[in-house]
Amino acid sequence: MSPDLSRRHFLGGLGVAAGASAAAAAGASQAHAIGLEREPEKPKKPPLQTATVAFDGVHQAGIDTPSQSHLWLIAFNIKKDVDRTRLRNLMRVWTDDARRMTAGKASRTDLDYELMQAPANLTITLGLGERFFEVAEKEAEKPDWLKPLPAYKTDELREEWNGGDLCLQICADDPVVVSHAARLMIRNSAPYLDVHWIQEGFLNAKGALQEGETPRNLFGQKDGTINPRAREEFKDQVWIENGADWLRGGSALVVRRIEMDMDGWDILDRISRKVATGREIDTGAPIGGKDEFETVDLSKTDEYGLPLTDPQSHVALAMPPKELPNQKLLRRVYNYDLPPEKDGRFTSNTGLVFACYQKNPLEQFHPIQQRLAEGDRMNQWIFHIGSAVFVMPRGTSESEYWAQDLLAD
Amino acid sequence: MSPDLSRRHFLGGLGVAAGASAAAAAGASQAHAIGLEREPEKPKKPPLQTATVAFDGVHQAGIDTPSQSHLWLIAFNIKKDVDRTRLRNLMRVWTDDARRMTAGKASRTDLDYELMQAPANLTITLGLGERFFEVAEKEAEKPDWLKPLPAYKTDELREEWNGGDLCLQICADDPVVVSHAARLMIRNSAPYLDVHWIQEGFLNAKGALQEGETPRNLFGQKDGTINPRAREEFKDQVWIENGADWLRGGSALVVRRIEMDMDGWDILDRISRKVATGREIDTGAPIGGKDEFETVDLSKTDEYGLPLTDPQSHVALAMPPKELPNQKLLRRVYNYDLPPEKDGRFTSNTGLVFACYQKNPLEQFHPIQQRLAEGDRMNQWIFHIGSAVFVMPRGTSESEYWAQDLLAD
Repeated sequence: MSPDLSRRHFLGGLGVAAGASAAAAAGASQAHAIGLEREPEKPKKPPLQTATVAFDGVHQAGIDTPSQSHLWLIAFNIKKDVDRTRLRNLMRVWTDDARRMTAGKASRTDLDYELMQAPANLTITLGLGERFFEVAEKEAEKPDWLKPLPAYKTDELREEWNGGDLCLQICADDPVVVSHAARLMIRNSAPYLDVHWIQEGFLNAKGALQEGETPRNLFGQKDGTINPRAREEFKDQVWIENGADWLRGGSALVVRRIEMDMDGWDILDRISRKVATGREIDTGAPIGGKDEFETVDLSKTDEYGLPLTDPQSHVALAMPPKELPNQKLLRRVYNYDLPPEKDGRFTSNTGLVFACYQKNPLEQFHPIQQRLAEGDRMNQWIFHIGSAVFVMPRGTSESEYWAQDLLAD
Repeated sequence: MSPDLSRRHFLGGLGVAAGASAAAAAGASQAHAIGLEREPEKPKKPPLQTATVAFDGVHQAGIDTPSQSHLWLIAFNIKKDVDRTRLRNLMRVWTDDARRMTAGKASRTDLDYELMQAPANLTITLGLGERFFEVAEKEAEKPDWLKPLPAYKTDELREEWNGGDLCLQICADDPVVVSHAARLMIRNSAPYLDVHWIQEGFLNAKGALQEGETPRNLFGQKDGTINPRAREEFKDQVWIENGADWLRGGSALVVRRIEMDMDGWDILDRISRKVATGREIDTGAPIGGKDEFETVDLSKTDEYGLPLTDPQSHVALAMPPKELPNQKLLRRVYNYDLPPEKDGRFTSNTGLVFACYQKNPLEQFHPIQQRLAEGDRMNQWIFHIGSAVFVMPRGTSESEYWAQDLLAD
C-alpha cells in the first residue's frame, strides 16, 4: 500500500468518510486555477497542473507523501506583541492559504494567481516549536520531548540554523510553485512572525528516476532505503497515537542541517566510500548483497572471518538494537548546494536538509544520533551545523484550521 | 521549425553530415550510464534518463536549446600562473567532461557516476571574458564589444556579481544533474581557475507548463514572448556571422543580475502592474489584445484617444526602433529566490539571472538597456546589481575541444 493510500484510508478514524474525501480531492484536482478560467480550453493539461495532494485528513500531508523534488523549510519566530488571539488569526489565514494553494487555487490575497496554475503536488505542513505553547497559553500541552536535543559530541551548531517557534515545510515538484507558495505564506504571516531561517532543498526532478526509486544525495549514496513504506510501519514509527486530540495523528520533526565536505569525499576511492557508508554504492545493497532492500546482517563475514559490514560504518551504527526494532524513523531529506560562503571551510557549500519524522525524538532520533556521533566513520565528512525540533499537529477536517484544538475559544 | 531542429540543420555548414550527428546523438542517448550497466534491465526508462541534447554542432548547445528548468551560471577568474599552454589543457579536460556528461556518461574523473544516470537535457556552454584573450596571447582576436558595458543611470552594480575571465552556463531539467555537473566542472578546473561568482536559477519543472508555453517570472510576468524562434530570427539576432573561424557561429552573452523588490510589487494592483509591464498580465497579450503573440502596436489608442500602451512601459521602451528591426535579443532568463540577506533592503532575496544572447551587445543589449534605464516604469521595482559580458565561441566537431582555433599550437 502506498503511503498516500494509507493516509486516505486513515480518514475513517476521524469520522470523515474516506470515499467523500477522495471525491473531494478528485474535484479539487480538476478545479481550474483562477487565471486559467479566462483562457480557451486546451486539449490536455500538463501532468503537474492536475497533480494535487489532499490537504485535509487524519495526518497532515507532506509527511507520508512521496518526496517531491523541491523543498523550502522555513522556521519563524513569533513577534513580541503576538498573543493567543493573534496566533488564532494567523492559523485561520494560513490554513485557508495552504488549503487553497495545495488544491491549485491561489491564496485569497494573491494577485499573481497565474503562478499557481500547476499545483505540482504542493504540500504545506505546519510544525510548532516550544514557544508556540507559551504564547498560546497551553504550556501544559507541550510534549516533553519538544525542546532542544541533547548536545552530541560532533555538534558544530550555529545559532542561525537552530530552533524556531513555528515551521512550515513547503514541498512541490515545481520550484516556481514552492517559491511562490513560500512567498505568500511568509507575507501573510508578516504581522505575526519573523523569518528565522530558510532551508531550500532539492531532489531529482520527476522523470529522472523510476517511480519509487530511492534518490541519491550529493555524496552519491542512496538515501531513504529503510524508510517506512507500509501503513503498519508508519503506525509503528511515525504517527503519534497517544495524547490530546490535537496531537493524535501528528508527528515529531527533527531538522538537522548537515554540511558535507565534498572536497574530502572526492579524494576517497569507491571502496573507502562503501566501507564508511556500510552499503554497496552502486545498488545500495548491504555489503556483499545484491538488492537494495535486503536486510543488513552484521554477523555476515568474508572468507577471512572478518565482518562484511564495518561495525563503525554509518549503516551499522544507525541500525536499531534487536530489542527495539522501531528505533527507526522516516527520513525526508533534501540536498542543498549553494555558492561557497566567503569564509567557508570547503570549496563548496553543500549538504543535506536532514528532516526526519518520528513519534518521539528522544526515543528515535536521539539514540541513533548518539551512536553515530560516537563512532560513525562518516563523521569525517559530515558536520551537523543546525538543529531544531517541532511537533506537527494532526491533520485537519475541511472546516478546521491548523491546531484549532489548541487555539479555539 | 523548433530551435533544436534549426541547430541540427546548421550542421551542414561545418561539413559534418547532419544525419551522422543525429545518429551519434541517438546512440549517446541510449548508452547506459556506467552505474546502470550493473543493474538488471528495467522495462522502460524514465523520460529524463534518455533526454540528451547533442553537444557538438555549428553552435554550442544551450543557446537555442529550449530553456531547461535549472541553471548554474558560473564565472571564473584565471589563476596568476596559468599561461596559454595550461589554458589549452583546461579546455581539453573541460570539453571531454562536457561532451561526456551531456551524453549521459560520467566525467572520466567522476567516482559518483550514478549521479549522471539521467542527463535530463543537460547542456554546458562556454563563454570567454576579456582576460582569456590576454592569457591566450590572442588579444588581436578579442571582439571590440568584449568589455564592461557602459554605465547606466540606474546601475547599482556590486563587484561580487561583475565580470569574470571565463564562464560556464550549465542547464538541465534536473537540479541534481546541474549541481553534480557543476561540481565536476569546478573541480576539474581548480588547478587553473578560481570561482568568481555562481548564479543559480530555476524555471517551471517539465510538466508544469504546456510545451513551448512562455514561463513567468516571480512578478507573474510572462518572460520571453518576443524571443527568436525561427531559424531566420536566430540568424538575424543571435549568431555571429562574420569574423575569425572560432567566432563564426558563436554569440555574445550579457548577464545582468536583477534584484526584484517583491515587497513593492506586492502592493501594486493588477492594473498598475499591467501599465508598468505594457502587457496584459493574464495572457501576456499587448494591452487590449487577446493573444500573447500579437504584435504590439504603440499607436493604438483607447476611446479617449490615449495610447493603450504607456510609452514609459517596459514593453514600449524595449521595442526596437522601426529602422532597426533586429535590435532584439534572445532572453534566456531564470528566476532566483534565496533566503534574505542579512542587511538586505527587502524581505526577500529574489530576482532574475538575466542572461541574453545576441550578435553584438553594443548594438542590441546596450541601446535597449539605455532606453530602459532612462524611463522604464519597472525601474521602481528592479535593480541591476551585476553585469558581465562573454563571447561564446562556435560549437565543436566531435574531434575538437572548445576554442581550439584560439589555443592550438
